[in-house]
Amino acid sequence: MKITIIGLGLIGGSLAIDLKKQKFVSSITGVDIDKKNAGEALKLGLVDKIEELEPAVSGSDLVIIAIPVDKIKILIPKVLDLIPDSATVTDMGSAKSEIISVVKNHPRRKNYVPAHPMAGTEDSGPQAAFEGLFKGKICIICDQEDSGPQHLALIEKIIHLTGMDIAYMTSDEQDHSTAFVSHLPHAAAYALANAVLAKEDRNIIFDLASGGFRSTVRLAKSSSSMWHPIFQQNRNYVVEALGVYIKHLTDFKESLEKKDDDKVLELITNANKIRGVLAGDNSSLVRNMETNFKLYTK
Amino acid sequence: MKITIIGLGLIGGSLAIDLKKQKFVSSITGVDIDKKNAGEALKLGLVDKIEELEPAVSGSDLVIIAIPVDKIKILIPKVLDLIPDSATVTDMGSAKSEIISVVKNHPRRKNYVPAHPMAGTEDSGPQAAFEGLFKGKICIICDQEDSGPQHLALIEKIIHLTGMDIAYMTSDEQDHSTAFVSHLPHAAAYALANAVLAKEDRNIIFDLASGGFRSTVRLAKSSSSMWHPIFQQNRNYVVEALGVYIKHLTDFKESLEKKDDDKVLELITNANKIRGVLAGDNSSLVRNMETNFKLYTK
Repeated sequence: MKITIIGLGLIGGSLAIDLKKQKFVSSITGVDIDKKNAGEALKLGLVDKIEELEPAVSGSDLVIIAIPVDKIKILIPKVLDLIPDSATVTDMGSAKSEIISVVKNHPRRKNYVPAHPMAGTEDSGPQAAFEGLFKGKICIICDQEDSGPQHLALIEKIIHLTGMDIAYMTSDEQDHSTAFVSHLPHAAAYALANAVLAKEDRNIIFDLASGGFRSTVRLAKSSSSMWHPIFQQNRNYVVEALGVYIKHLTDFKESLEKKDDDKVLELITNANKIRGVLAGDNSSLVRNMETNFKLYTK
Repeated sequence: MKITIIGLGLIGGSLAIDLKKQKFVSSITGVDIDKKNAGEALKLGLVDKIEELEPAVSGSDLVIIAIPVDKIKILIPKVLDLIPDSATVTDMGSAKSEIISVVKNHPRRKNYVPAHPMAGTEDSGPQAAFEGLFKGKICIICDQEDSGPQHLALIEKIIHLTGMDIAYMTSDEQDHSTAFVSHLPHAAAYALANAVLAKEDRNIIFDLASGGFRSTVRLAKSSSSMWHPIFQQNRNYVVEALGVYIKHLTDFKESLEKKDDDKVLELITNANKIRGVLAGDNSSLVRNMETNFKLYTK
């Protein structure tokens, strides 16, 4: 079985590590348009050889695309054109509807299984890849009825090998939910970084930056090449989520300004409920999810 | 030397651990209005005995107050009244101007050294205390010319024993800077939690909550008894910081809405600069600070 991973960064590289550790494959072929990345991935042992796109894909049983969503959108019809008829293709993009729409009528649409692992760090590139990135996380599979059963089964098997559970939903549901839990926190962190960078006495501020600031602004380090296209492709839902967030911030600011201290206390107390909600371990997470999704458990 | 710590939570408890580990004292007296907290701190070995406020303070050489800022404001004149004439008092509050103003004309103002360790977690209570909480962090000392030199020296010594460096500034500078690096991230996290808790399909959202969401919303778990009074006491600067943040979020949202993708890219790229600014280790931090503050280095 020949596996090709296109895009040898944090996600592609970490996946390569896990699939070899799990002895799912002994050899992985890498494709990366960035020659430096490709060389580094080879040196780090993430992949065993580097090939050009066409020879790599045309001889593969499985192609995993782990590049920014604007590049996925361009590449995915080409990859479906090039693969053998029995091969499976998946992508790891964080926004899904627009990507899926470009291959909607492709004769090999059934070979494609759209996936979104809810995992990552603010770092990128092959050197950011590590074993266990996906362990205990959730991977979303979209519109599973549009994928052939063998192709779906293969991607499910790979996802479980990396230690993730699977949530099944439509691409529209995925884009809406992801706007709130992933794209909004990134936009919020970018804005927080910009707000503090704009202060005149910012040196003072950064010198003082405590753990609280660091963790809240952490996502603002995330690369523009990955995130800019996500915001473009999921524009409407991100705008909706930002609107809701700005409304809640404005509530907080106005309550404070008006000295409505009961209201400020209420807003803090309500927000504290997040503690209970996020405290759940994986088993409670899976239990909760069963009420929302058809869940494939190991 | 008798040390009393008033407030046996995360900050007071962690300080107690460090001071004993560093062999600065062999025994610490604890005061806590919450009998459960007091008992737990004793059981955990954070303190060696529990006393009522008056006997504890009136026999102490050093009193450390680590309770919410509204309680500090009430307690600090009483503590200054009760201490022996040579004793030193410090507090660990995150907002300083209002607290300092209530003892401005106290005959023992020189015995008081206002301090703010920029360290913490979202947890509270004696069981949240741990060794090393302060290591590598910054502690602000405010209006140092209003403290007696011996009192200042004792508090500086204690701060350095816990592994912190010191930044000296006026209480107004401290409240302004802290509004941006600490109080704003907390308000932002509370609003983010409320925005997501308000979603109808919030179960779906929480089940998907990935690392990015968790770290961004982490501070929203912080206790209202500590944070509500901070927002009240530092109201004006927190309102200013929230205004700047909302402006930057609105910029982001409107650029996305108007499909001004160049602008969105510019906002992300600018925010990425936070990576370089926050990457510095302690030595660069100390170096930077020398340009801004008179810094007491070990």
